[in-house]
Amino acid sequence: MTQSISGHTRLIAHLGVPTESFKAPMIYNPYFEEKGIDVVVMPMGCEAEDFPQFLRLLFRLRNVAGALVTMPHKVSTVALLDEASTAVKVCGACNAVRRDEEGRLIGDMFDGEGFVRGLQRKGRIIDGASAIVFGSGGVGSAIAASLANAGAARLALFDTRPDSAEKLAASLKAHYPAIEIETGSDDPAGFDIVVNATPIGMNPADPLPMDVGRIAPEAFVGEVVMKQEETPFLAAARAKGCKTQVGTDMLFEQIPAYLEFFGLPSTTPEELRRLSRIRY
Amino acid sequence: MTQSISGHTRLIAHLGVPTESFKAPMIYNPYFEEKGIDVVVMPMGCEAEDFPQFLRLLFRLRNVAGALVTMPHKVSTVALLDEASTAVKVCGACNAVRRDEEGRLIGDMFDGEGFVRGLQRKGRIIDGASAIVFGSGGVGSAIAASLANAGAARLALFDTRPDSAEKLAASLKAHYPAIEIETGSDDPAGFDIVVNATPIGMNPADPLPMDVGRIAPEAFVGEVVMKQEETPFLAAARAKGCKTQVGTDMLFEQIPAYLEFFGLPSTTPEELRRLSRIRY
Repeated sequence: MTQSISGHTRLIAHLGVPTESFKAPMIYNPYFEEKGIDVVVMPMGCEAEDFPQFLRLLFRLRNVAGALVTMPHKVSTVALLDEASTAVKVCGACNAVRRDEEGRLIGDMFDGEGFVRGLQRKGRIIDGASAIVFGSGGVGSAIAASLANAGAARLALFDTRPDSAEKLAASLKAHYPAIEIETGSDDPAGFDIVVNATPIGMNPADPLPMDVGRIAPEAFVGEVVMKQEETPFLAAARAKGCKTQVGTDMLFEQIPAYLEFFGLPSTTPEELRRLSRIRY
Repeated sequence: MTQSISGHTRLIAHLGVPTESFKAPMIYNPYFEEKGIDVVVMPMGCEAEDFPQFLRLLFRLRNVAGALVTMPHKVSTVALLDEASTAVKVCGACNAVRRDEEGRLIGDMFDGEGFVRGLQRKGRIIDGASAIVFGSGGVGSAIAASLANAGAARLALFDTRPDSAEKLAASLKAHYPAIEIETGSDDPAGFDIVVNATPIGMNPADPLPMDVGRIAPEAFVGEVVMKQEETPFLAAARAKGCKTQVGTDMLFEQIPAYLEFFGLPSTTPEELRRLSRIRY
């Protein structure tokens, strides 16, 4: 079945530069085609200096269905929203925007939601659990916020830039005052959930992002790196007996959340993965 | 073969409101798919008040390949160009914009070119010919300009709003001082080429746009109305023995000119018609 763009087709703009590494078009569009949903995700290589104006005008197009926002616009989007989710507020970053009936811009961020949905569907209960998240950048913040939102009792944050972890800790405490939050230690020992949310593992020569020997065999270990299906880090954790979640699971698990956010018919991560034109 | 939008795909924005009647996506995109040209024509329902700003920002996107411009923006585009073709200058309207290496916006208009290419490919020599064009709006102006550019010796312009015909006549005289230009008469008698460039014929109840009985049987008769493959006007002309050109010929004949303008691999109108998803 061929995707047939016509004058009735609605647009989801995929905004960022450079566009070459974008994956969303190859996930959403085959799904839209298969289901006859008349929407297209189109990459638009918008420069940072043009972004605030372009986003505003984009959402005045009659046939816009939403926007997916990626680097370098995730942070600057927040100030352009009329309404932001808690995840956006905690992370200070936004990667999905839609327009409501009054033309207000609503923003959300589902990286962390994808990670948490994946864990939950693999049987890991978040409520009351402890977790350590390596990396307090965009995706690490999003995962920490979603773990907090799903009921984690104790969160440890580690970043090689301590300021970054402290800032995230403060933001999480403000939104989730009941959670125990720790910073400063890179020891994964004793945590129920261990997350690599750093880019370490993207290059074959990278070291492991932490001391895997210290991870408990009962721990659930997750990864955000998608360059390889199983990173050396996940392989090492699995060798210890840990359950694991690959980076692409986070990706495919979050798409249903975006579809719901845009008001489009949703589906399962499995179907999205099956239809996807990305091959890992 | 399925069109696969990725981060490498370039965008031709199809700008106008409303978008529902747009035909270009169903002509260009199947051709791009078939040939593996990684470009997509995407409708964007831009409001008139947003258009000047939006066009400027659109052409700052890294992956923009051009814009197709339609109602209500064809006239307002002209003032936004850094460089306009003679056709644009004569018509005061523009329906294709591209960016050159320095980021300058270059505009052209190929409605008339499509009409003339169609006549020429049907064997009608324009050089030295006489023509009467009914309707001095956007498409009529474009056809008159292209006939002038192709060497027509004598042009008659008729519009129910005489000001409109006079204005076009003045513009043509300024750019093509050697041509004999007449206005005021709706008598098609004695012309080599007779053109209906009015919307008369779009509704089944419409009268004929002129007195077909006065058309010479040797005349070549062309039409811009595309709602039906053969309009009552063309049927009447053909019954007299005239050669004719249907409205959709103008459409498909002009696409190769746009492809050349955008610097994309070009093809024949026949292949475009065969691949098109529009059915008339």
